[in-house]
Amino acid sequence: MNAGSDTTINPGRVDLASPVLSTPCLILDEARLRANLAGMHAHLRQLGVGFRPHLKTAKSIQVARLAMTSPAGSATVSTLREAEYFAEGGVRDILYAVGITPQKLDRVDMIRRRWDTTLTVLLDSVEQAEAVASWGAHSGHVLPALIEIDADGHRSGVPPEDAQTIVAIGRALGTALRGVLLHAGDSYGLNEPEALTEAAERERAAAVAAAAILRDAGLPCPMVSVGSTPTARWARDLSGVTEVRAGVFMFGDLFQAGVGSVAVRDIALSVLATVIGHRRDRGWIITDAGWMALSRDRSTARQAVDQGYGVVCDLAGRPYPDLLVAEVNQEHGILALRPGTGTDLPDLPIGARVRILPNHACATGAQHDRYHVLDGDGRVGAVWPRINGW
Amino acid sequence: MNAGSDTTINPGRVDLASPVLSTPCLILDEARLRANLAGMHAHLRQLGVGFRPHLKTAKSIQVARLAMTSPAGSATVSTLREAEYFAEGGVRDILYAVGITPQKLDRVDMIRRRWDTTLTVLLDSVEQAEAVASWGAHSGHVLPALIEIDADGHRSGVPPEDAQTIVAIGRALGTALRGVLLHAGDSYGLNEPEALTEAAERERAAAVAAAAILRDAGLPCPMVSVGSTPTARWARDLSGVTEVRAGVFMFGDLFQAGVGSVAVRDIALSVLATVIGHRRDRGWIITDAGWMALSRDRSTARQAVDQGYGVVCDLAGRPYPDLLVAEVNQEHGILALRPGTGTDLPDLPIGARVRILPNHACATGAQHDRYHVLDGDGRVGAVWPRINGW
Repeated sequence: MNAGSDTTINPGRVDLASPVLSTPCLILDEARLRANLAGMHAHLRQLGVGFRPHLKTAKSIQVARLAMTSPAGSATVSTLREAEYFAEGGVRDILYAVGITPQKLDRVDMIRRRWDTTLTVLLDSVEQAEAVASWGAHSGHVLPALIEIDADGHRSGVPPEDAQTIVAIGRALGTALRGVLLHAGDSYGLNEPEALTEAAERERAAAVAAAAILRDAGLPCPMVSVGSTPTARWARDLSGVTEVRAGVFMFGDLFQAGVGSVAVRDIALSVLATVIGHRRDRGWIITDAGWMALSRDRSTARQAVDQGYGVVCDLAGRPYPDLLVAEVNQEHGILALRPGTGTDLPDLPIGARVRILPNHACATGAQHDRYHVLDGDGRVGAVWPRINGW
Repeated sequence: MNAGSDTTINPGRVDLASPVLSTPCLILDEARLRANLAGMHAHLRQLGVGFRPHLKTAKSIQVARLAMTSPAGSATVSTLREAEYFAEGGVRDILYAVGITPQKLDRVDMIRRRWDTTLTVLLDSVEQAEAVASWGAHSGHVLPALIEIDADGHRSGVPPEDAQTIVAIGRALGTALRGVLLHAGDSYGLNEPEALTEAAERERAAAVAAAAILRDAGLPCPMVSVGSTPTARWARDLSGVTEVRAGVFMFGDLFQAGVGSVAVRDIALSVLATVIGHRRDRGWIITDAGWMALSRDRSTARQAVDQGYGVVCDLAGRPYPDLLVAEVNQEHGILALRPGTGTDLPDLPIGARVRILPNHACATGAQHDRYHVLDGDGRVGAVWPRINGW
C-alpha cells in the first residue's frame, strides 16, 4: 500500500485494523463524500446557479469527477500543477484562482495548447492586465481573465467601490475580460447561520455591483463567480451570480464544523493511526500520527471549541468522548482527555487503531499522496492517488 | 522543473529570478548546509562521540551522504518509508526512532532482508519488547532494539528512575537488547547557552544512569544514544554516550535560531516566492507562497521574537528589515512590516521574487518534493529530490 503510484489501486477490501494498511494513512469515507456533494449540488441547483468546485482540497481526479457537474468541468484550482493534472484527466474548463504573474503565462499557454483546455486566470491590477493583454496580442491567443474583487478586506482584490480601477483593469484586458470573482474569506470567522447568510448576501451584492460597474462602462461581464464553503452553504439568494466555487465542504473538517458549514458526523476525511505507547502517569496515549500526518493546522484554536490537533474516533468513525490529539511531534501524536472532563481514557493497547478527524481538510490532505477509500461496510475498497506541489 | 522525478536533475545553473523556476519552490544553500554539517562533525569529534544524523528533516539521499560520516551510515529515521528509501540509497545502519508496533514488524524484516540493512527499533514497554522478542524467536532473526528513556517528561519513554521497568524490558528483549535512547525535547523551550548546556548534561546523565541500570542487572548496553539539535550543539561533555542524533541543525530555521542552536545567517533552507499583488492601503505585499509552501508551523509564536510565517529576504538571502510573512492562505502569503516599526515597505513590484526563511525546516521541507540547490554564485545548479509519506 506504500509504493508510489499515479493510478487507482484496488487493494481488495481491507479492514481498517489490517496490517496491510501501514499507518498513518488517510481514510476517505465515500458515502459521506457523496452525501456532502449531493447536498451542495441540490442546494445550488435550487438557487439556479452554476457550480465550479474548488479542487484544491481534494487534488484527486476521482474526487473531481464526483464533484463536477460534467467530466469536462468546470473546476477551480489553486496551482498550475493542479491545472495540468486535471487537464490530463479530461477537465476542459479550469479557473486558476490565484493572482497571475507574467512569469507563469508561458506555462498557462502550454496547458491551453497541450490539452485544448480553457484556463482562466485571475488578477487585480492594471499591471497584470496589461501583461495578460500584451501576451495575448503577442501570441495571437486570448487568455481569458477575471478581475478579483475584495468585498471584506481579507486578502487580494480591488475594493468593489473602486470603480475607476475596476474599469481600468477591464479596459486593459480588452477581449480577455471575462468577469469578476469574489471570495468571502471573512465568513470563516462567523458561526451563526444568520450571520453566514448575511455574509453570503454581502458577497453576492459586491459581485453584482462590480459586474454592474463593468457593464455600465460598456464592458462585458459574462462570469460573476463567488464562493467559500460557508457562504455557499448558507446563501439563500444568488441572483446575478453565474457560478459558485467551494471545495472543503466535500470532505468537511472540524474548523468548518465550528463555523457551521458542516456537521462533525459528515466529516469524510480522517487519519488512521496506531497506538505506539502510553504514559499512564500523565493520562497520555501515544500514536504514530504526529503533525506530519495531521498537519500543523490549529484552526479550531480560535473557535469556541478548540479541538486540539483533532478529534479521536473509533474505527467506525464515532468520536471517543472528550478525547483529542492534545500535542504532536513530527511522528508522534499525544492523545489526552479534554481538560476538566470526568470521562475515563478508553482502553487502547499497543497496536490498537483510531481515526482522527482533522482541523483543516486541505492541510491534512496535503500531507498525504493517496486516499484509502472506505466503502459502506467500513472496509477500504480502493486507493485514489492525490497530487501535491506546484 | 516541475515534472516528478526520483533522480538528481541538473537544470544547468538557473538564476533565482528565472521563469524556469516555477514558484513557490524550495531553495537549499549548499555552502550553508556544508558549513552547518562541518561545525557539528567537528564539535562531536572533539567530544569523542559518534554521530547518527537524523534524516527526517532532509529526507534526501544527497543530503544524507553529506551528513553521515560514512556512505553506509549510521543514520536515524522517523518513518519506515525513510528507512526503505535510505536503504535503497546504500545506508546499512538505520535506527527507526519512533515506537514500534507489532503490525510494523513484517515491514521492518522486509527492509532487513531486501537491503541487508541493520534496522534498529525503539520501544518503551514490556508488551512491545515481548512482541519483538517473540517475532525474533519465530523468524530466527534477532531484531535489534533500544529502550526509550524519558528524561524530561515531554513524550514517550520510561522515566530513568524506573529501574524495574527498564530491567523488565531489557530481560523481555533478551538478545535483541542494544541499549538506551533519549531525546531531550524540553530543550526546545530554552534559549540560553548555559541552560542548553545544562539540558545536554541532564540528557547525558539520564542516559548514563539508564545504561548503568541495565549493566547492573547483568544486561548489555552497547548503545547509549542521545540527541536533539539544541543539546547536540551545546553539549560540553558526553562521557558515557556512544552517539548523538540531530537533524534540523543541518538546515537551521527561525525556531532553532530563537533557541540559539543556529544563527539566522546560517539558515540553509528558504522558499522562493513571487509577488502576485499589493494592497497598498493595508501595507500588504501578496506572494504565491502560502501555507502550502511554508507549512502551517508557527513555532516562533511562543518564542521571544515571533517571526510570523517567516522572515522575508532578498534573492541574496539578506533579510529585509522587519518584513515578515504576516498571514497566509493556502496559496497566498501576505508580507507586512512587523507592527510598530518605522521601516518602509521595500519596492517589490508584480513578478519580483523573495526568499522566505521558515519557522521549522522539517515542516516546510515536507511541503515539497525537491530541493533547488544553490551554488556559491547564487544560482541553482542541481535539483535534489526528497521523499515524503510513510
